[in-house]
Amino acid sequence: EFARIDNHRSLRRGVPEVIYCQGKTTTQVVEITRHMLKSGNNVMGTRADLKTFHEVQLIAPDAKYYEPARIFAVQQEEVLKNEGIIAVVTAGTSDIPVAEEAAVTAELFGNPVERLYDVGVAGIHRLLMNMKVIQSARVIIVVAGMEGALASVVGGLVDKPVVAVPTSIGYGANFHGLSALLAMLNSCAGGVSVVNIDNGFGAAYVAHQINRLGEKGE
Amino acid sequence: EFARIDNHRSLRRGVPEVIYCQGKTTTQVVEITRHMLKSGNNVMGTRADLKTFHEVQLIAPDAKYYEPARIFAVQQEEVLKNEGIIAVVTAGTSDIPVAEEAAVTAELFGNPVERLYDVGVAGIHRLLMNMKVIQSARVIIVVAGMEGALASVVGGLVDKPVVAVPTSIGYGANFHGLSALLAMLNSCAGGVSVVNIDNGFGAAYVAHQINRLGEKGE
Amino acid sequence: EFARIDNHRSLRRGVPEVIYCQGKTTTQVVEITRHMLKSGNNVMGTRADLKTFHEVQLIAPDAKYYEPARIFAVQQEEVLKNEGIIAVVTAGTSDIPVAEEAAVTAELFGNPVERLYDVGVAGIHRLLMNMKVIQSARVIIVVAGMEGALASVVGGLVDKPVVAVPTSIGYGANFHGLSALLAMLNSCAGGVSVVNIDNGFGAAYVAHQINRLGEKGE
Amino acid sequence: EFARIDNHRSLRRGVPEVIYCQGKTTTQVVEITRHMLKSGNNVMGTRADLKTFHEVQLIAPDAKYYEPARIFAVQQEEVLKNEGIIAVVTAGTSDIPVAEEAAVTAELFGNPVERLYDVGVAGIHRLLMNMKVIQSARVIIVVAGMEGALASVVGGLVDKPVVAVPTSIGYGANFHGLSALLAMLNSCAGGVSVVNIDNGFGAAYVAHQINRLGEKGE
Amino acid sequence: EFARIDNHRSLRRGVPEVIYCQGKTTTQVVEITRHMLKSGNNVMGTRADLKTFHEVQLIAPDAKYYEPARIFAVQQEEVLKNEGIIAVVTAGTSDIPVAEEAAVTAELFGNPVERLYDVGVAGIHRLLMNMKVIQSARVIIVVAGMEGALASVVGGLVDKPVVAVPTSIGYGANFHGLSALLAMLNSCAGGVSVVNIDNGFGAAYVAHQINRLGEKGE
Amino acid sequence: EFARIDNHRSLRRGVPEVIYCQGKTTTQVVEITRHMLKSGNNVMGTRADLKTFHEVQLIAPDAKYYEPARIFAVQQEEVLKNEGIIAVVTAGTSDIPVAEEAAVTAELFGNPVERLYDVGVAGIHRLLMNMKVIQSARVIIVVAGMEGALASVVGGLVDKPVVAVPTSIGYGANFHGLSALLAMLNSCAGGVSVVNIDNGFGAAYVAHQINRLGEKGE
Amino acid sequence: EFARIDNHRSLRRGVPEVIYCQGKTTTQVVEITRHMLKSGNNVMGTRADLKTFHEVQLIAPDAKYYEPARIFAVQQEEVLKNEGIIAVVTAGTSDIPVAEEAAVTAELFGNPVERLYDVGVAGIHRLLMNMKVIQSARVIIVVAGMEGALASVVGGLVDKPVVAVPTSIGYGANFHGLSALLAMLNSCAGGVSVVNIDNGFGAAYVAHQINRLGEKGE
Amino acid sequence: EFARIDNHRSLRRGVPEVIYCQGKTTTQVVEITRHMLKSGNNVMGTRADLKTFHEVQLIAPDAKYYEPARIFAVQQEEVLKNEGIIAVVTAGTSDIPVAEEAAVTAELFGNPVERLYDVGVAGIHRLLMNMKVIQSARVIIVVAGMEGALASVVGGLVDKPVVAVPTSIGYGANFHGLSALLAMLNSCAGGVSVVNIDNGFGAAYVAHQINRLGEKGE
Ligand SMILES: Nc1ncnc2c1ncn2[C@@H]1O[C@H](COP(=O)(O)O)[C@@H](O)[C@H]1O
Ligand SMILES: Nc1ncnc2c1ncn2[C@@H]1O[C@H](COP(=O)(O)O)[C@@H](O)[C@H]1O
Ligand SMILES: Nc1ncnc2c1ncn2[C@@H]1O[C@H](COP(=O)(O)O)[C@@H](O)[C@H]1O
Ligand SMILES: Nc1ncnc2c1ncn2[C@@H]1O[C@H](COP(=O)(O)O)[C@@H](O)[C@H]1O
Ligand SMILES: [Mg+2]
Ligand SMILES: [Mg+2]
Ligand SMILES: [Mg+2]
Ligand SMILES: [Mg+2]
Ligand SMILES: [Mg+2]
Ligand SMILES: [Mg+2]
Ligand SMILES: [Mg+2]
Ligand SMILES: [Mg+2]
Repeated sequence: EFARIDNHRSLRRGVPEVIYCQGKTTTQVVEITRHMLKSGNNVMGTRADLKTFHEVQLIAPDAKYYEPARIFAVQQEEVLKNEGIIAVVTAGTSDIPVAEEAAVTAELFGNPVERLYDVGVAGIHRLLMNMKVIQSARVIIVVAGMEGALASVVGGLVDKPVVAVPTSIGYGANFHGLSALLAMLNSCAGGVSVVNIDNGFGAAYVAHQINRLGEKGE
Repeated sequence: EFARIDNHRSLRRGVPEVIYCQGKTTTQVVEITRHMLKSGNNVMGTRADLKTFHEVQLIAPDAKYYEPARIFAVQQEEVLKNEGIIAVVTAGTSDIPVAEEAAVTAELFGNPVERLYDVGVAGIHRLLMNMKVIQSARVIIVVAGMEGALASVVGGLVDKPVVAVPTSIGYGANFHGLSALLAMLNSCAGGVSVVNIDNGFGAAYVAHQINRLGEKGE
Repeated sequence: EFARIDNHRSLRRGVPEVIYCQGKTTTQVVEITRHMLKSGNNVMGTRADLKTFHEVQLIAPDAKYYEPARIFAVQQEEVLKNEGIIAVVTAGTSDIPVAEEAAVTAELFGNPVERLYDVGVAGIHRLLMNMKVIQSARVIIVVAGMEGALASVVGGLVDKPVVAVPTSIGYGANFHGLSALLAMLNSCAGGVSVVNIDNGFGAAYVAHQINRLGEKGE
Repeated sequence: EFARIDNHRSLRRGVPEVIYCQGKTTTQVVEITRHMLKSGNNVMGTRADLKTFHEVQLIAPDAKYYEPARIFAVQQEEVLKNEGIIAVVTAGTSDIPVAEEAAVTAELFGNPVERLYDVGVAGIHRLLMNMKVIQSARVIIVVAGMEGALASVVGGLVDKPVVAVPTSIGYGANFHGLSALLAMLNSCAGGVSVVNIDNGFGAAYVAHQINRLGEKGE
Repeated sequence: EFARIDNHRSLRRGVPEVIYCQGKTTTQVVEITRHMLKSGNNVMGTRADLKTFHEVQLIAPDAKYYEPARIFAVQQEEVLKNEGIIAVVTAGTSDIPVAEEAAVTAELFGNPVERLYDVGVAGIHRLLMNMKVIQSARVIIVVAGMEGALASVVGGLVDKPVVAVPTSIGYGANFHGLSALLAMLNSCAGGVSVVNIDNGFGAAYVAHQINRLGEKGE
Repeated sequence: EFARIDNHRSLRRGVPEVIYCQGKTTTQVVEITRHMLKSGNNVMGTRADLKTFHEVQLIAPDAKYYEPARIFAVQQEEVLKNEGIIAVVTAGTSDIPVAEEAAVTAELFGNPVERLYDVGVAGIHRLLMNMKVIQSARVIIVVAGMEGALASVVGGLVDKPVVAVPTSIGYGANFHGLSALLAMLNSCAGGVSVVNIDNGFGAAYVAHQINRLGEKGE
Repeated sequence: EFARIDNHRSLRRGVPEVIYCQGKTTTQVVEITRHMLKSGNNVMGTRADLKTFHEVQLIAPDAKYYEPARIFAVQQEEVLKNEGIIAVVTAGTSDIPVAEEAAVTAELFGNPVERLYDVGVAGIHRLLMNMKVIQSARVIIVVAGMEGALASVVGGLVDKPVVAVPTSIGYGANFHGLSALLAMLNSCAGGVSVVNIDNGFGAAYVAHQINRLGEKGE
Repeated sequence: EFARIDNHRSLRRGVPEVIYCQGKTTTQVVEITRHMLKSGNNVMGTRADLKTFHEVQLIAPDAKYYEPARIFAVQQEEVLKNEGIIAVVTAGTSDIPVAEEAAVTAELFGNPVERLYDVGVAGIHRLLMNMKVIQSARVIIVVAGMEGALASVVGGLVDKPVVAVPTSIGYGANFHGLSALLAMLNSCAGGVSVVNIDNGFGAAYVAHQINRLGEKGE
């Protein structure tokens, strides 16, 4: 038995069990999925390629695949829905896969999501024209590579928690996401905290936990 | 006029205006303080040494100094109080100054704070014996240097948002906080987001914004 | 003659000669193996792919291949057995290949091995529930990627030497194992020493040398 | 003779000879100044402390000291005046010393300078309210530390060359200016080029060369 | 709609809209191209492979491909021509692809370009013999990998703005362009500013903005 | 109460409680010492300057100070003595403070220590002439800065566990101990594990735990 | 014409013109070779794969290929022979390709070469048993990856110039050759200078220039 | 006895014993000096401040101090003189202390030295005007900080071995000498090898060993 699986958590919070597929063989992913499904929980896999999804489908015909997000999901029970909106904002087009990992995860965890893509600071008017989307949200996930400036600008414009996701998008002196990571950690705007480079899943997890605090009855 | 000061924000949210004193001359700090006080807001200064505080006292006799936190504060109006608790947890004794920056900031912003210091993972029983403190909180700030493992352990034990603050405590291969920073960014536990090395203030700011979401009427 | 081979050592200590296969051509590996076998010693190869193993089998039909460990081994003589147990512990599922390199090496060197996999700090109860395995060992090898916190937690729980192996498992700000490496070097727990990233073999070698010290008659 | 001095250049372009004072003894600075003054050129020294200035005054009583810029200057001839404006913009108050090094250098080289300080992206309205200053300039020098986002935002708002100066202002993961440097090099806005961390002088030099191209008769 | 496209800018300045193709799917590139072409603007794509070009040709039969530059371009309107020359200079033969990205971009933006390739400092006479080419230019783009010394040498020989492009050419301790990048940022010659590693496009953009300042009527 | 102190451990293993004094105020060190002494344990402080020692002496008149090691110690009970020898070997004279931290710690923990200083690889005969000292030991601590080669050479000469301590001795490209650290982590010799830069204490702790395994009755 | 070729040098010193093939297309290599051959010089190409060699053979049927060195060479004239020996020493088997680049280059430049491979410090006796080879040389090239300790050990044993070549052999914390590079730069032994990681060619070039100084009549 | 001293070497080669004073106490330096002097050898100390020199003078009244080089020397016997010249060349004025360490060391080792200071590439004519000095030498030491380009330029102009010394002169992105170090390691000119940052002594040692090869009778 190669993975100790904890089925209790999802029961308690109504969110799917999560498998991080990168670096696991397809067989391992399928076996972990099979095991997790037994307890009736929802299950999702991140960083999953199409081939992995197809193998999962063999044991879970209802599984869905979210291609740009590289996520597969098997729903077995209803997820508790939050009312607060999580906004997912990107600087560029190339940041979308990471943003989708965040957005789909947030949705699978029960949160309504508003997407606002390609509003990076090189053309600040695109952001300013869409402030309503951002202001309607309870938490904002900002996904940006290169100089990662968008997190600071958004952080300066709103009074809500901003979860910043640096991406590895760029080349040369971006050093695989280091430039955006450092920029976001040094944000001069209040209310910005940071997760790992390209970690859309982690951002959604944080955003979901924050969002729940605003729900009535929590 | 060397600093453009925005007095509106504090009116709206009832929290103090903040001056980051490091790298500013005492004269600059005093002048900015004087200007800010005019609008009736509360004012606080971080990274302030005793000398700066004494100069500030000359224009604001009621100013208080929080020594381990290196914060001075001038209160002119009542702060709106939150009900949710912010827990501030440290791995070691040497992390306390950063933790105090976080704790005092959180208090000045209107949050009740629970401190739990010196419960690092080298003696995990100290943490486990104090889980009640952590579980009573709505948001947890984890302050740790060296290997920064405490953030992951706490993140794995609770379902609340964890704001992790790496500190520069350590030597050699900690590279001035890099080891704790990277560890926290790579946390295998869900719900952990990270602010800059030694940034107690920033962590409190994020925690405060999150905490407010849980307040009735927000 | 492209490699100076020292056959004396194994005679003296009854452990296999070792070939590090990465960066060597299959022909080189086979020729070194052939040469080493002449003196009657046991021989093993690390970082060996299946193709290399198959070529080795042609000259050593009894050769065995340990797939997850990527090790081949040819046994020609009995290995001196130790009584003390070496525990091999991993944080996650993805750390298993490195752990198996350590575990199989330790076994081929004559040590009984206890494996405890996927007990990382995100779910600390999994570790605490299995303390007996760890306490039964004379030396503990901890294998962990990402934030590498497991080494500190284990180091804090036991009074035995802990050999920590950072792995390159993770992405983004783990910088190919740097995060776990730095975390382990900065461990706040006593008794933790560190080998190179992904160096399961090296950890087993150290653990074996330590383990022998506890054997009667040494 | 410890420094080979080239007096021709200033004759040709009417700008002062420049001494970089850091790492030079006061005696060396004074001797180089004395030598340079002989040919009737203007002379300036950067990174000069007050003590150095006072020694220079002994041989050049008309010398002036620009305190926040840490520059001394001796004028012996009229500088050719440019018409195009160079704007110097900073993100924060702490960036001002570097900005002043740039601004005073630009003025001593014959350029009219517009200063716009403390308009960083955490409060983007401050920048937007002052676009006229920026639009009136032919070249813009943007001085910012921490996440250095201001360069991208300005670069996106104007069609003029932007010379970006990262500063070492900040702490922790700014790694002495690295965060702002990388951010500026990775700017997603067109027209941004970068000089060394804290190199206000170098930025002014580049801006001056660019500005001259726009002068009639060049 | 995955990319917010701003068609106004090109109208105003007569330069092509630009698509950065790396990290975008061919479909995305074609769709963005199609959208941009609608407004009658010129369009170009950088980091475009031949396959992408062929797909673009299907919707824009007049598209041209500049192979060493990896740029495709669709011209729909006449570009405003500048008179000032932009010189593009390389240290070695291997720097040519980056230089061509700069040169072709500069030409598509309306600038006459002089190329001077393989004149690196290991044989300084090659540079000195070709000073006329450099002196005829209004702006000089210097493209160099390895030790990047050429930027400083050129910067010391001319009084025109030098835009330096470090390349990732080299191996070992060049660390993917870091050596040339740091060398150029630390140039002891005045008038050198720097863009990202391998960013030929960005250099041309800066050079074009500078060059326009010298045109009559600007 | 600023430090949670665990008095049980020392009872069980007969070794002193340890205070890491760096980054603590003298008052904190004295208070922690006072508290620890109450339970009758031995107490020691590392990275303690003379001033701290003198303050400690006021509450513990029998305290001893080991100057080159920067350690103070208060003995209240007999330490269990080991028979196996720990050898402490240095490459140079400047490594001695770190070596003494290791040697004195090992002695205070009950181990006989053999010192062999200044036998670095630049003069390999010095090491070879003293092999007896090394061979008499059960564990060897190798302390070296600069290129850290001594650990590999010693590791290749003996079959005992080698605990390597990189030091920050050197300048320039040693980057505060990084060169020795990386060298030791990449040791081509078997049986070498590594602790943090300058961490003499940690090395002694590991060596002590290993040494105990060889004691009869363990 | 994409490469400015300087045919004079070889005439003057009787050594081949050199083409660095990596990053050049096969066509470029062949064209440069063809051009160089016209002047009657010898020509060699480094980092050349077999395919490139075969294309070169079409225009130069006498071309030879040195496979482990990845060098092709075309001899058209006699090379001036040196009397002094250049020794090429490696730590391991995997360092041989870089060592062969050095050895073959040195031979093609007219130097007698002695090879001593796989004598790394993990088994120092292998080196000590072969000191005669090293002592017979006028210059020694030491090629080593991992911890690069061999350069210091050799440097300490001889009074001849040692040219150290770090290799990228290793994994994890060797960071692609950084560990060996830093170790060699920090060598505590006198007389060691360093070239780029994996730069066998450069080491041979330096060694050749040094060796010539010892020839009679120079 | 804290330092094992090898008196034989100097007898054999007629050069002084050398003490690296940095990181040693004055007492240690004086004691090592006293011991070394006993055997009649010459002795020198590098990185020695004036205070250390004065203490040394008490036991060696003939000791000399070379202030800019920070070297003290005690001559007890005649040094064997070489005929070949070592040229020491610097880019700037601030590099002189390192250059003097090299020059004085070379002289104390018996070599005639030609100094050529402040001829950096920002004004290449200064170097070209002084080629005679460089061409008269048998070995050239190039000392440069910032972008370190001078080593490549000199290496390209001469056919003699060039020993390059990066200095820590500069600021910001020179990262304490890293920029010059990387530039020199990546030199595109043949015949350049590199020593540690600021290591004037090491460069002189290498240059001396090379220079001796050219002496008659060696
Ligand atoms: N894309 C992702 N990035 C980072 N962490 C993830 C990702 N997907 C899943 N995880 C985390 O990885 C855990 C599962 O890891 P594993 O046990 O290796 O499948 C989950 O509980 C999540 O916390
Ligand atoms: N997986 C491994 N990682 C690190 N070192 C290894 C590994 N496998 C073998 N070695 C070491 O490499 C040596 C053999 O290297 P080689 O002579 O290149 O085959 C052995 O003596 C081991 O010390
Ligand atoms: N603050 C500065 N930062 C960077 N470069 C400078 C600065 N001040 C002067 N310089 C440059 O340094 C040169 C003078 O260097 P030096 O000969 O050492 O005085 C001048 O020609 C300028 O190009
Ligand atoms: N393997 C190599 N490593 C480093 N430099 C090399 C190598 N081979 C050739 N070179 C250098 O590269 C120059 C040729 O570069 P190129 O003009 O690009 O062919 C030669 O003059 C050599 O100085
Ligand atoms: Mg905000
Ligand atoms: Mg959690
Ligand atoms: Mg322990
Ligand atoms: Mg712009
Ligand atoms: Mg210039
Ligand atoms: Mg060994
Ligand atoms: Mg030597
Ligand atoms: Mg040369």
